[in-house]
Amino acid sequence: MSNRVNLSYVQFNPEFGNVDKNLKTVSKLLYKVKPGIVVLPELMNTGYNFISKNEVRGLSELSKTGKTSMLISQISSDIKSTIVAGFVEKSKNHYYNSAMVVSKGKFIGVYRKTHLFYNEKQLFSKGNTGFRIFNIDNFKLGVMICSDWIWPESARTLALKGADIIAHPANLILKGLCQQAMPIRCFENSVFAITANRTGVEKRGKDSFHYTGQSQIVGPNMKILSRARSNCNSVNSVNVNLLNARNKTLFKNNDLIKDRITKFYK
Amino acid sequence: MSNRVNLSYVQFNPEFGNVDKNLKTVSKLLYKVKPGIVVLPELMNTGYNFISKNEVRGLSELSKTGKTSMLISQISSDIKSTIVAGFVEKSKNHYYNSAMVVSKGKFIGVYRKTHLFYNEKQLFSKGNTGFRIFNIDNFKLGVMICSDWIWPESARTLALKGADIIAHPANLILKGLCQQAMPIRCFENSVFAITANRTGVEKRGKDSFHYTGQSQIVGPNMKILSRARSNCNSVNSVNVNLLNARNKTLFKNNDLIKDRITKFYK
Repeated sequence: MSNRVNLSYVQFNPEFGNVDKNLKTVSKLLYKVKPGIVVLPELMNTGYNFISKNEVRGLSELSKTGKTSMLISQISSDIKSTIVAGFVEKSKNHYYNSAMVVSKGKFIGVYRKTHLFYNEKQLFSKGNTGFRIFNIDNFKLGVMICSDWIWPESARTLALKGADIIAHPANLILKGLCQQAMPIRCFENSVFAITANRTGVEKRGKDSFHYTGQSQIVGPNMKILSRARSNCNSVNSVNVNLLNARNKTLFKNNDLIKDRITKFYK
Repeated sequence: MSNRVNLSYVQFNPEFGNVDKNLKTVSKLLYKVKPGIVVLPELMNTGYNFISKNEVRGLSELSKTGKTSMLISQISSDIKSTIVAGFVEKSKNHYYNSAMVVSKGKFIGVYRKTHLFYNEKQLFSKGNTGFRIFNIDNFKLGVMICSDWIWPESARTLALKGADIIAHPANLILKGLCQQAMPIRCFENSVFAITANRTGVEKRGKDSFHYTGQSQIVGPNMKILSRARSNCNSVNSVNVNLLNARNKTLFKNNDLIKDRITKFYK
């Protein structure tokens, strides 16, 4: 099996609460990507700016059998790809800010957001999956959601668990900050990362969020392999060599992982 | 006691092996800084590009009573400052890539470099101090040396131990890389950092190192408060409010330290 794979993001402007419309937009865009790994934004089917737990409940879905999961799974089969997509996951009496991983028609699993941001603390249950690795074809896929990037332990944990690629669904509102940080995350861990962000403005309740777009794909050498504009729908694919993420050597004598001196880390 | 303090770096081009000349240059430059915390480059009295253990031994000094320590201590008294300076430390049969901390005439302690880079692995003993906090006046000072920045655990550990300010003596050769990363280190930990780099070229043995200058002081908000040019001696001081480093709040509901979900970190 080849060590080369296509990494893609889909960026768009979800309309709050209009799941049907959002899934229609997403479907159209997904059929444009090259087969490989595709990342969609955080909460891509519902929008982000929930103002009550009731709203969260109302727009939640089961991870495997919900309508979003079923549709995304079908598309993943059609486009022969692995898709990572943010949604509100209902599980028993809990509602998580989750990302589903589906691959070529199969539901693979979910990641539930670890570091909840701002209002999310009041709206969602704390993620209880931890940082998981999904073994797909010949690559190891890690997932983190939006603000998880702020805590360096997120990407680090995924890298220590063997991630080649970090799928990073996001709804970023702090201009350029994450986009500037992800090359450092990729460098310090020698991984690829696909940050799929959304665009647009959501004014609901007391908060008005301006999303920053600029979805991007970054290589282990910090290079930004693709970056979308800040304000329009965008689909981009980049073909990469996975072996670049498996080489953890730094400047000949160093190794990013083996040279960790954990006894001195707190 | 005021929460304001001056942070400074001294950047210059040490001549390999010419300790007397380097200390003379450093002395002149140190008398130009504003009283506060001053950081000098890694191995500032000896130069960096050692080609044998014999050379390392020959230029090593005792941390407290060596001639470099005595001189820097005297100057720290004269300029009413805390000085962090890189040197080769001799301790029993070990030779460390260390940084001394002296304050207003008193020797405070040393930090011995944890993550040795490239040839350093063959030349120096592994640092055995771990990441230490020095309590001086009303601030907590952490120290890391040069390539320690690459491992996010270095700055993280210092922040978790309470550092307000990270003193970062360096001899950086990868152009712009550390300078780009330190704002992320400062943001994710909400700390100040002073990176004191050197300039010039050292061609000795098989390696020719081009040092990148651009010493800098960064705030917890990622702002670069001062950055030197890449090729000349430079002394700069910035007056900051320590309280900015003690506020770990992020976007109202988050806290960079308290929101760590350590059970999910590897």
